[in-house]
This record gives sequence, structure tokens and C-alpha cells, in this order.
Amino acid sequence: MDIARIALNRHTCKAYDPARKIPAAQVEQLKTLLRFSPSSINSQPWHFIIAASDEGKARIAKAAQQGPYAANGTKILNASHVVVFCARTTMDDTHLASLLAQEDADGRYPTPESKAAQSKGRSFYTGLHRYDYKDTQHWMEKQVYLALGTLLLGAAALEIDATPIEGFDPRILNEELGLREQGLTSVVIAALGYRSADDFNAKLPKSRFPMERVISEL
Amino acid sequence: MDIARIALNRHTCKAYDPARKIPAAQVEQLKTLLRFSPSSINSQPWHFIIAASDEGKARIAKAAQQGPYAANGTKILNASHVVVFCARTTMDDTHLASLLAQEDADGRYPTPESKAAQSKGRSFYTGLHRYDYKDTQHWMEKQVYLALGTLLLGAAALEIDATPIEGFDPRILNEELGLREQGLTSVVIAALGYRSADDFNAKLPKSRFPMERVISEL
Repeated sequence: MDIARIALNRHTCKAYDPARKIPAAQVEQLKTLLRFSPSSINSQPWHFIIAASDEGKARIAKAAQQGPYAANGTKILNASHVVVFCARTTMDDTHLASLLAQEDADGRYPTPESKAAQSKGRSFYTGLHRYDYKDTQHWMEKQVYLALGTLLLGAAALEIDATPIEGFDPRILNEELGLREQGLTSVVIAALGYRSADDFNAKLPKSRFPMERVISEL
Repeated sequence: MDIARIALNRHTCKAYDPARKIPAAQVEQLKTLLRFSPSSINSQPWHFIIAASDEGKARIAKAAQQGPYAANGTKILNASHVVVFCARTTMDDTHLASLLAQEDADGRYPTPESKAAQSKGRSFYTGLHRYDYKDTQHWMEKQVYLALGTLLLGAAALEIDATPIEGFDPRILNEELGLREQGLTSVVIAALGYRSADDFNAKLPKSRFPMERVISEL
């Protein structure tokens, strides 16, 4: 598969055709990509909220109607589906215990020793971020971006247009969706669907720094 | 394309066959995936160091030979290729100017007004992170994880095994590769190649939280 060609052909969609909807089978593929995204120590420190209804998209767009964010509100309203990527606000022992129980139920621990070793290794990494780096929230949000990267390339492979959106007010969105009460915070949004004739970015060449500036070899 | 199937079939490789090397044409695809990864405001706040030589991999492995990191050192030494994902340590005006010049050279600005508008929008976002959120470093590192997500799914599509590695000492790696002097810091590593018979993880089922726990619909 020429996955590099897919990466070269994708672009950030700037205007969606509100009449075109992503077929259900492809929505399932997008959900699988999100759910099975890798994360450090399999921590899955996330939740994904998907809006397909006009009402759901309107609620999300409330956080992107102010000043410089307004153009993003329009994308959110016209896209077929919109994903709000949320991070957990804690990486607590309850979460770690339920992670280990899920892996056990899924058959990853042939012996009690292998389960104990995984738990110990995971404690090392969560402790590193909690006590040494003191960056647990950022660490979790990085995993969310890993899922965003997975979704954007996956959508392109399915010939679905997408727009990663940082330009929104997370306080408004957290309040609108009651995210804090659920131990979550909104991190980034992805709009998904099919571009309209107004998508000027589809006609512009992609731009990146030259290979030699961003890659060196050892 | 059944990209979800590819995501379901990938796994974190725990042991590499040192004799198997990624063909040159596929290495080029991996480099294209990295170079063309999306990033917020196209900021490309990164540099990727790729080691294919034994000497290069040994230099990287120096940062993963201590205590709990030792198993990662072995993966780094036995993988075909190893990518060190670096973030910039500043998002300064020189970088922003060279970004705008690159986009101009690549033909993204049909009018001076469109170029000025892009520069203004970009200043808004860099200012937001510099002055309001005060999280520029974390913001840049999130983009690096977006590139990591792109690479991991892309490698799976090319049937290349991969291992995302946070378990290394970035101070040792920064010093070994002289990264600070280049305005860079190491963030995460990916080993790439082909699994050996010792890769116990290839035989274990994947585990993730159930769909209803990680995805909700609006």
C-alpha cells in the first residue's frame, strides 16, 4: 500500500459539503481507529465524543463562535461527524486497576507473574510523571494527540476529509458537555466529512520544510 | 481500504529480528509520512533523527540501558531503523518567518493579503501558548505525538513492526546527540523493523476498554 501517497494527498479541509454524510461502515472504522490507538503503557487516558446530529454539532460549535475561532464553528456545523478528543483529568489508581482488569479479561496475562510485572512497570511510568516530571496532564494529552494522528491518517486512507481544530474555547466546551464532572477535559477537535467547492485549501499546494531540514540520519 | 483492520492487527513489537532490514523504498515512505505529518498552524516544531547504522543505533541505545529502560535498549539495537522524535525548544520569530517563506515559495499565497492573514492567525496561536496558556513546549510536543501517531499507523499499513518508546533518559540522549545546541530536545523514540520469534506480544490478544467506555455520541 502506498500510504505515503495517501499522506501527501490529504489536506486540512476548510469547508464542508453539509449534504454529504460519512457512510455508517466507515464511521465504524473511524471508531475502531480511535479505540485501538496506541498509548503509553496502554493507558488509554481519553474519551472521544462523536457528534453526527445537528443538535450535537451545534453544542460543540458553541465553543468555536468567538473571534478568531468563528471559521471553525462553521466547519463543525457543516461537517458530517465531529470528534471531541478528551483527556482524563487524573491518572488515578482506580483507572490503573480497571486497565489491568480489562487486560486480564482480554487474555493478556498467562501467569499471575506477568500481570504483576505489568502493574509494576506501569506504576514506574505513572510515578515518573506524577512525582518526577510533574506533567501527568500533559503526558495524557500527548497520548490524545497520538490518537489524533491515527485518526487523521486513517480518515485520509478512507478518503474522508478532515480538519484538526485547536481553535476553540475548552472552558466553554467543558461546561457545555459537562466534561469536568466526568473527570474529562476537551483537548482538540476533529471535523470529518467531505469538502465543498469552497474548500480553498484543496486547490493550494501543500507546504513543508525540505527533507534535509526535518530529517537527519545517524 | 480496510484501515481499521490494519489498526487492529498492529501491535507494539517487543523483540526484533536483527537480520531483517526495511527496504529503501519503504524507508522513503516512512520519511514522507514524518515530513508531511500535520501540525497545528503547520508549525512543524520538530526534527526527526533516523538511525539505520549499528553505530547510530548504539548511540541512541545509550539512553536506554539503565534500570527499567534496559529492555528498550535491546529493541533499539536490534530494530532495522530507529527514529528519535525531537521537539524544538523555542517557537521563535525566526522559525515563524522561515515557515511563512517556505509556504510562499511552495505557492500557498496567491495574494500578499492571504500571506498577511496567515501570519496574523499564526501569531494569535503562538501568542496564546506563549502568553496565556504558557505551555509552548508542551504544545510543540503534542504536535510531535501527532507525527508519532501518523508514523505508527503508516508503518502498520506498510507491514512494518514498530515500538513507540517513552522509556529512555532524554538528558542522556540530548547530550549524546548534541540536541540542545541545535535548539532541540528528544521527546519519544520509535523502533521499526520486523519482529523475531521472541516477540511475545505478537501472540497476545490486544486489549482496549470497551467501545462504550471510550466513545459516546451526541
